[in-house]
Amino acid sequence: MIPESLTQGQFDTVYNFLSLVIASQLFTALFLLICLPRILPRYRQAITVAIVVCGIAAYHYLRIFDSFKDAFVTDAVGGDGIYTQAAGASFNEGYRYVDWLLTVPLLLVELIAVLALARALQSKLLWRLVPAAVLMIALGYPGEISDDNMVRGIFFGLSMIPFLYILYVLFVQLTASLDLQPAGVRRSLSNLRWLLLGSWAVYPIAYLLPMLNVSGADAWVGMQIGYSVADITAKAVYALIIYRVARIKSFAEDPAFAEREMSHGAFARETV
Amino acid sequence: MIPESLTQGQFDTVYNFLSLVIASQLFTALFLLICLPRILPRYRQAITVAIVVCGIAAYHYLRIFDSFKDAFVTDAVGGDGIYTQAAGASFNEGYRYVDWLLTVPLLLVELIAVLALARALQSKLLWRLVPAAVLMIALGYPGEISDDNMVRGIFFGLSMIPFLYILYVLFVQLTASLDLQPAGVRRSLSNLRWLLLGSWAVYPIAYLLPMLNVSGADAWVGMQIGYSVADITAKAVYALIIYRVARIKSFAEDPAFAEREMSHGAFARETV
Repeated sequence: MIPESLTQGQFDTVYNFLSLVIASQLFTALFLLICLPRILPRYRQAITVAIVVCGIAAYHYLRIFDSFKDAFVTDAVGGDGIYTQAAGASFNEGYRYVDWLLTVPLLLVELIAVLALARALQSKLLWRLVPAAVLMIALGYPGEISDDNMVRGIFFGLSMIPFLYILYVLFVQLTASLDLQPAGVRRSLSNLRWLLLGSWAVYPIAYLLPMLNVSGADAWVGMQIGYSVADITAKAVYALIIYRVARIKSFAEDPAFAEREMSHGAFARETV
Repeated sequence: MIPESLTQGQFDTVYNFLSLVIASQLFTALFLLICLPRILPRYRQAITVAIVVCGIAAYHYLRIFDSFKDAFVTDAVGGDGIYTQAAGASFNEGYRYVDWLLTVPLLLVELIAVLALARALQSKLLWRLVPAAVLMIALGYPGEISDDNMVRGIFFGLSMIPFLYILYVLFVQLTASLDLQPAGVRRSLSNLRWLLLGSWAVYPIAYLLPMLNVSGADAWVGMQIGYSVADITAKAVYALIIYRVARIKSFAEDPAFAEREMSHGAFARETV
């Protein structure tokens, strides 16, 4: 599925985007690790999961990065060169699925955890979202590795079923719970769902490109950029919004804590 | 864009400067991580961002370092040798842009965060500075990777617009807020802006060198030294000044805290 050859510019672009994802995930995880004491204990579960998600993503992108480097050889001497497929190496797209299989369910756990719902309701939602997420990723994989558009289409359709079910749970069943959240965070929490939807939408699009006979180096480079941006948005940016929600809720629920923290006194005041 | 060949001295000089940046960023981050409890919670956000910035810079310089080593081969046997461009490798200058894309906006966040302004004013400033910073870097990249001086010049001009806007916000709009800061830190905070301006100035100069037909090994080595020194100043030194400001403000605002800390009693006295 990788192109016959890449120009120096195309190679460097993919190279830099993959590296951008590694840096984003790694240092979002570090940032959240340092900030963990700065929210109430009841919200640390959500942020701990976020740290793990970003860490898992960083690990897999390190592998994808190396896999990409090894998959091409260049005739470049210092400057511009043409990169062609290396003998005895292949770019392993499967890493992405291993990553998603672990991280996508955890992203939903983050969202539910930061809501701090009643225990019964929380486990009810998780028992719906997590298995659906695992199923969605697992059903996508056989199609991804198949060169047969028929097989690809079938598994695309199958994985859309749990995908739509997740959207149903998030946008219909969850709405009532969101209305019970503090005013200061209701908007952010509602937007988080759209962030997930928007960034996840990149995956089915990239998935379908080969079926639409969109191919060649530019399409492939575009797909790698799309995956990279989507992973940064859906994991790192998403985690930072979850942290902000956790912090605002911590201040709102414990004025004494807000007073101690006082990170920008005005901030605490505004959000209480 | 890298020179045909480097002397042993030129190669070692770049090698040592790149390594100096890695050490500076990594251990500034470690130092600040250890010092985080030694300032009031309200200033820890600024220092946490500083830690992340230095960490991101260290990561990218590790990559730049490896990219540089791989880009040259030498005939040296033990002693002096000539380093020529290696086949199948190219020096990836793009890393710098990936680094700046993440760190430059965060450097501005550090500065605003340590001011501990009213929340409304703070977010107003950040909504102006951060997008402008991202735009400035993103617009520079297409010119950097282009060998066409025309294209290079156009994108240089485009990225100068957000650059000048940032200067306007920092040196005009921010001045009023600086006057409200404690006397002990007003000077340092004002100087931070000049530190940014001074170190950032290196980038457009290095950017323009190829257009001025300044080329050859010496110019390239000088450019690498310039980038390295600028990155140490704009990130590590900058972060240490921010930490000093945060510590002085912490002592000034909480005498009990200053009393407890009291390492450098005289320092605490001087600043209360």
